[in-house]
Amino acid sequence: MDFGKYIKRKREIVNQALDRCLPDENKEPKSLHQAMRYSVFAGGKRFRPILAIASFEAVGGKGKAILPVACAIEMIHTYSLIHDDLPCMDDDDLRRGKPTLHKVYGDGMAVLAGDALHALAFELLLQSKNPQVVYEVAKAIGTEGMIGGQVKDLEAEGKKVSLKQVEYIHTHKTGKLLRASVRAGAILGGADKATLSALSSYGEKFGLAFQIVDDILDVVGKEEVIGKKKGSDKANSKATYPEVIGLEESKNLAKDLLTQAKNRLRVLKNEKWVFEKLADYVYERIG
Amino acid sequence: MDFGKYIKRKREIVNQALDRCLPDENKEPKSLHQAMRYSVFAGGKRFRPILAIASFEAVGGKGKAILPVACAIEMIHTYSLIHDDLPCMDDDDLRRGKPTLHKVYGDGMAVLAGDALHALAFELLLQSKNPQVVYEVAKAIGTEGMIGGQVKDLEAEGKKVSLKQVEYIHTHKTGKLLRASVRAGAILGGADKATLSALSSYGEKFGLAFQIVDDILDVVGKEEVIGKKKGSDKANSKATYPEVIGLEESKNLAKDLLTQAKNRLRVLKNEKWVFEKLADYVYERIG
Repeated sequence: MDFGKYIKRKREIVNQALDRCLPDENKEPKSLHQAMRYSVFAGGKRFRPILAIASFEAVGGKGKAILPVACAIEMIHTYSLIHDDLPCMDDDDLRRGKPTLHKVYGDGMAVLAGDALHALAFELLLQSKNPQVVYEVAKAIGTEGMIGGQVKDLEAEGKKVSLKQVEYIHTHKTGKLLRASVRAGAILGGADKATLSALSSYGEKFGLAFQIVDDILDVVGKEEVIGKKKGSDKANSKATYPEVIGLEESKNLAKDLLTQAKNRLRVLKNEKWVFEKLADYVYERIG
Repeated sequence: MDFGKYIKRKREIVNQALDRCLPDENKEPKSLHQAMRYSVFAGGKRFRPILAIASFEAVGGKGKAILPVACAIEMIHTYSLIHDDLPCMDDDDLRRGKPTLHKVYGDGMAVLAGDALHALAFELLLQSKNPQVVYEVAKAIGTEGMIGGQVKDLEAEGKKVSLKQVEYIHTHKTGKLLRASVRAGAILGGADKATLSALSSYGEKFGLAFQIVDDILDVVGKEEVIGKKKGSDKANSKATYPEVIGLEESKNLAKDLLTQAKNRLRVLKNEKWVFEKLADYVYERIG
């Protein structure tokens, strides 16, 4: 199958599943349900749920059991963006080309809508009936994972950071959940140890490269592509790879990481091409 | 055993377990771990974990399996208070007699510390190896539970609310998690259907009475007892029972609810006295 078609099809499946998993916006508390839907359907690329589905299918998983897990991961990603955009955090007015949630619904509702997506994600993860899957995600978003990275990111603002520090921030803030997406799919699909280990490693490299590319796009990207003001990292004095090692070195590093990620795929029997193309796709965004 | 001694003992057990369950504050990210500990050890009454333990033991549960669940529930309660105290929500400077987390660590860190406690709670709930227990808590804190109540509470500020509305707010914002505390303990302890139903009903009545008493204390309580400025509900134009049905009627209602709660306990073989005393204790706070 053509990669463009594959992504489009998976994105539709994810969007339909998200629509089923989110509470009806005509059901009380309506404003909360509307706010949750506003952010979830503000036009994400659905990378994480697609990675979860691809991993599940790559190891032989069949049917729709992965969908609640994939939706849960996308909801967690969305909750983290909502809280990250708040005035007391990154203070962003635009996200994916649309006004951020707190600009439309107010800061208090944005805090609560994020919290509600966080809680709903665990309800959905439980539908997998696989405690290991739930645990992987919980661990990836805690103090040794996503939140740990966000704290270090917040504390690094306006300071000169080392390569080691920016690596910590990126591998935790972004990398851990991307890695967990791949692992959750593989575990639920019944991966053997070697395949799980290979896919984890792919997820790790992919996750770091993904965030480095995001940093690069903030410098060189088109605003209609990145969905927010260019140069906002610099304006907010954020810790980024281009700031620490320069633009060219950042591009080289992203490319190396994605090549390393692809090299881990040898063990895969199915869907190897999907993971290869996903890695290429990430790099092509800056290409 | 004497009730005062019973509570003191359980509180110590809970505090020790919380200390074990929370990440070390000398471990990175230190500031985050310090912030989490600051709020969790700011002097809570530990009602929810004690209810969970009492239920577990009342239905014959033995050993320490309930402790991670009890800690998880207290962490969820703490996270909800941290977010609730933020300037964009209730904007409270004091909680339990100490400066609120955002006053000490900043708003951004308060958002993240709340999120981290939320995620850690699910890691701990999973230790129960009982999906029903995890589900009960997830459901109780979502849009049809705690967060739903908080949204309605936020939206009611400054407006005239009906008895039906304030009942919705209180049963959801406070009641659902208290009920879940009792249910989680009972389910993990292996309660039969009739006992679980009786304890749920106790938790429901207890939960509503608990919040009504909280409302009353905001009007008549001593500041050193309630740990924050008296009259803050009125100052923030919050929806409260005294505001809607008056102080005397609120007291009568709280007493009725606690009596009804106690009447559900007939089916209990063990620890019935604990639940009776807990109900009395809630009322005595305004007595």
